[in-house]
Amino acid sequence: MMLNCDLGESYGAWKMPVDERIMAYIDQANIACGFHAGDPLAIQQAIASAKRHGVAIGAHPAYPDLQGFGRRSMKMEREEIIACLHYQVAALAGMAKCQGVAVRYIKPHGALYNDLMKDTALRQAVMQAVAHFEKGALPLMIQAHPAAGEFIHEAEQLGITLLFEAFADRLYSDEGFLVSRHQEGAVLDAEASFEQVNELLDSGKITTESGRRLTIKVDSICVHGDSPDAIAMAQQVREELDKRGLSANQAVPS
Amino acid sequence: MMLNCDLGESYGAWKMPVDERIMAYIDQANIACGFHAGDPLAIQQAIASAKRHGVAIGAHPAYPDLQGFGRRSMKMEREEIIACLHYQVAALAGMAKCQGVAVRYIKPHGALYNDLMKDTALRQAVMQAVAHFEKGALPLMIQAHPAAGEFIHEAEQLGITLLFEAFADRLYSDEGFLVSRHQEGAVLDAEASFEQVNELLDSGKITTESGRRLTIKVDSICVHGDSPDAIAMAQQVREELDKRGLSANQAVPS
Amino acid sequence: MMLNCDLGESYGAWKMPVDERIMAYIDQANIACGFHAGDPLAIQQAIASAKRHGVAIGAHPAYPDLQGFGRRSMKMEREEIIACLHYQVAALAGMAKCQGVAVRYIKPHGALYNDLMKDTALRQAVMQAVAHFEKGALPLMIQAHPAAGEFIHEAEQLGITLLFEAFADRLYSDEGFLVSRHQEGAVLDAEASFEQVNELLDSGKITTESGRRLTIKVDSICVHGDSPDAIAMAQQVREELDKRGLSANQAVPS
Amino acid sequence: MMLNCDLGESYGAWKMPVDERIMAYIDQANIACGFHAGDPLAIQQAIASAKRHGVAIGAHPAYPDLQGFGRRSMKMEREEIIACLHYQVAALAGMAKCQGVAVRYIKPHGALYNDLMKDTALRQAVMQAVAHFEKGALPLMIQAHPAAGEFIHEAEQLGITLLFEAFADRLYSDEGFLVSRHQEGAVLDAEASFEQVNELLDSGKITTESGRRLTIKVDSICVHGDSPDAIAMAQQVREELDKRGLSANQAVPS
Repeated sequence: MMLNCDLGESYGAWKMPVDERIMAYIDQANIACGFHAGDPLAIQQAIASAKRHGVAIGAHPAYPDLQGFGRRSMKMEREEIIACLHYQVAALAGMAKCQGVAVRYIKPHGALYNDLMKDTALRQAVMQAVAHFEKGALPLMIQAHPAAGEFIHEAEQLGITLLFEAFADRLYSDEGFLVSRHQEGAVLDAEASFEQVNELLDSGKITTESGRRLTIKVDSICVHGDSPDAIAMAQQVREELDKRGLSANQAVPS
Repeated sequence: MMLNCDLGESYGAWKMPVDERIMAYIDQANIACGFHAGDPLAIQQAIASAKRHGVAIGAHPAYPDLQGFGRRSMKMEREEIIACLHYQVAALAGMAKCQGVAVRYIKPHGALYNDLMKDTALRQAVMQAVAHFEKGALPLMIQAHPAAGEFIHEAEQLGITLLFEAFADRLYSDEGFLVSRHQEGAVLDAEASFEQVNELLDSGKITTESGRRLTIKVDSICVHGDSPDAIAMAQQVREELDKRGLSANQAVPS
Repeated sequence: MMLNCDLGESYGAWKMPVDERIMAYIDQANIACGFHAGDPLAIQQAIASAKRHGVAIGAHPAYPDLQGFGRRSMKMEREEIIACLHYQVAALAGMAKCQGVAVRYIKPHGALYNDLMKDTALRQAVMQAVAHFEKGALPLMIQAHPAAGEFIHEAEQLGITLLFEAFADRLYSDEGFLVSRHQEGAVLDAEASFEQVNELLDSGKITTESGRRLTIKVDSICVHGDSPDAIAMAQQVREELDKRGLSANQAVPS
Repeated sequence: MMLNCDLGESYGAWKMPVDERIMAYIDQANIACGFHAGDPLAIQQAIASAKRHGVAIGAHPAYPDLQGFGRRSMKMEREEIIACLHYQVAALAGMAKCQGVAVRYIKPHGALYNDLMKDTALRQAVMQAVAHFEKGALPLMIQAHPAAGEFIHEAEQLGITLLFEAFADRLYSDEGFLVSRHQEGAVLDAEASFEQVNELLDSGKITTESGRRLTIKVDSICVHGDSPDAIAMAQQVREELDKRGLSANQAVPS
C-alpha cells in the first residue's frame, strides 16, 4: 500500500500551503503540470523535493483552467484531451529528466479525475493518451471503485496498467464516488479519516454515507499536507502501514 | 546551409496563416511550445506535419506572454528563465516522442531571441538551460553575428553547440542586429530578400542599412510561409541552394 | 429587424479575419470582452470601428477559456458566472465610455450562449448578472426559440428585457436549437442562408433539419463577416430588409 | 494622511493571506484588476469588504502577467499600456458600480508602478490612460519622491491629479526609490517601519540606506495585512495618526 499527495500546486506568487514535511510520510508525489497549477519554477522545486526524499513522481495533469484550479468540468474533444495530456505529462517528464529522475505514473487532477469515472468517452480518451505516452509504460492512477473490473478491462485492451487510489479524508457515496465537497460532511476529520483507513486495511472495504459497505481494491491512499493536522494524519497512516507491514520498500510497484 | 521556418503558432481558434506547403522547401521547423503560441493540438499537428515532410523539429520557446506573442521583453530571474525553457522544450520533446520523432535543436523566440543577443546574464541563463536539457545534447540556434566568437566561447565552456541563423527578409543594423519591425524598411521585399541571400551565399556577408558589409557565419536561413509570396520566396531560395550544391542531404548537421 | 455580427475577436498577434466592411451592413456589433477573445487593444479598436460606423455595441462575454475560444462548456458555480459576466461587461462598458459610447446590450458567447438555452440554473445566473449590471438597464440577447415565452417570463420576474436572435447561416434542429457545427450540413451556404432569412421575414418561421416549421420571434439576425462571401451575404440581407422597409432607423430598439 | 493596502489579490483556489481585519485600520483599498491577480470573484469580494468597512476603493492595474504577479517589467507599446489600463480599471469600476460604490483612484501595481517612476515614456502612457478614463476624474497614486515636482508638472499638463504614497516597511535608496526586494534589508521589521513612519510624520523626511535624509510629500502610507504582525503594525500606525489628529475623516480627499 502506497501513500500519495498532491504537490507542486503553487503558481508564481501564490503558494499552496503544503508542508514539505509530508514528503517524509508519502511514497508518491502527484506533481501539477501547469494547466491547473504549477508554474515551471514550482514544478522544478517539487521535483527536486521529491527526489531529495526518494518519493516517486507522478504527473498530475488537468483541464486547462488556472482560474478554476482544474476543478470545473470542461467539455473537450477527444483530440484536445489527448494533446493536453501529452503536453502536460511531457513537460513534467522532461523537467524530471533534467534532474535525473523519471515520472512513474499519471494521475489526472480535479474535475478531469472525477469526470473520467463516469464518462466513458472521456475515460477512453485519457486511457489512449496514457497508452500513447512512452508506449504505455506509465500506469494510470484512478479512483478505486467497486466496479473497477470494467476499467481494468478497458485498460487491458489498450495495454496499460491501472493504479487504484482511495481517499483517507473523503466521504464516499453509495455509488462508490466521492461525495461533493459542496455537501456537508464530505471531508472527514482526522479521527474519521483514520477509521476509514483502518477499515480499508482491515477488510478492503469502505463505509458509504448511508452506511453501506463497498469493497474496493486499493493500491495507494491519498493524503493531504496542507496543515499540521494533515501532516499528523499522514504520519499516523504511515505508522499504521509500517505496523501492519504494508509499507512498500520501493515507491512504485515493479 | 539549412532553411528554417517558424511553425505551430496557432492557438485554439486562431490560426497563424502559415501555408503547410512551406514544408516542402525547409529543413527545420521551429515549433512553438505553448508560451507565446501553440496550444497542445496545434503543436501536435505541427509535429505530425514536420514528420510527414522529413523536416527536423526545433523547440521554439518564448517568454510566457500569449497576449504579446512573446514579442515583449520581460525581466525574468535566471531561475525563472531556466525553468520556463525546460518546461517548454520538455513539452515539445515529449510530444514529438509520442510521434516517434526527436527534437533536434532549440531556437528561442521573439523578444527572448533578440534580448539574449545583447544581455549577457540572460544569454547565460538560456545557455545553462540548454546545457542542462538532455545533458546539452541539443544545439542552441541564435542569430548569426559578426561577434559570434564570444558566443561560441561561452557555449564551449558549457559544453553546448551553437547554430547560427540569418534572416532572408530582414534588414540588418550596422551592429549586426535586426532593424526593429517598427522601423520602415525593416522587412525586405521578395527581390531584396533574394539578393540578401545571394550575397550571403556568394561572400558570407550581408549589407547593413547604412551600406556596411558584415561577415557572418551562417548555418541556417530563416524563411516565412505566411503568404503565397513567402512560399515562392522559400522555393526560390531552396532552388538556389540546390543549384549551388549547398542543400543538406539530412535535415540536421551530424 | 436588426443585423448583428461578432467582432473584436482578435488576440494579440492573432487576427480573426473579420472584414471591417461588415460594419456598413449591420446594426449591432457583439464585441468580445477578453475571456474567449479580445485583448484590450483589439477591444478598443472594435469599439472605435463600431462608433465610426454608428453601430450599436453589445458586450459578448464568455466562459474564461482563451484556448477553447469560449466554445467548450464549463461547469461554473452561480457566483462565478455572475462575477465573470460583471467583470467582462464592465471592462467593455468602461472602455466604450472612454470613447464616449455606451454598451447597449449583452449577448453571451459560444458555449455559454448555447448552454443557457437548456440549463435553467445557468440561465438564471446569467439573467441575475444582467439584472444587477446597471440595474438591469441592458437587454440580454439570446437565441430566438419557439418556447421563448418561458424565458420572457423569467426575465420579467428579474425586471430585464430580452432580445431574440436568429441565425442566417445555421441549420436548426427540431427542438429549435442549432445543429452542432460538428454535424454535416450545420452551416448553410449563401443561397440557403438567404432563403432561411426570407422565410423568416415572410412568415416568422424557420424550417428545421427534418422539414418541420417552427415559429420564432426575432429581433436581430446574426451574420458573419469572415469572408468576401459573408460580406456579400450580409449586404444581401441588408438590402432585403431595406426593400421590405424593415431596417431600423436606430441601431437599438427604444 | 491616509493608510492604504493591496487587496483582492487572490486567484481562484490561491488565496493571498491578507487578513480582512486590516480593513479596520486603512482608508484605501487598492484592489487587483485581474491581470496580475484578482479573479472576478476575488475582486467582487474585495469590493464588498471595502464597502462594508467604508474604505475607499482604488484600481490596482498591472502588466498582464499572472505567472509573475505583475512583478516582472514588460516592454509594452504605449497603445498597449493605455488599452490594458483602461480594460482593468473599467472592469473594477463597473464591478464596484454593481455594488453601488465608485472607484476613487488608480494605483499601478508592481513592476509597472516601479517602472513608471524612471521611464518617462511609460509614465506618459500611464498618465494619458488616467486622463482619458472618466475624463481624468480619478487621481493617479504613485510613489512619493523628492523630485515629484516634475511628475506634478506632467500631470497638470494632462489635467490629472496625483496622490503620493510612501512605504512604511521598505528601505529607500539614496535616489528616493525602493531598494529591491532581492537586496538584504530591503523590507523593514515592525520597529523600523514604525520609526520610518514617525520620522515622516515628524519631519516629512525619510532616511535612506546610506543615512541620507530625503524630503517627500506624502498623501498616503502603504501598509500590509498579510500577517498578524502586519495587522498589528497597521493598527499602531492608525493609532499614531489618530493621536496626531492626522486621520482623515473621509477615506479620500475631496
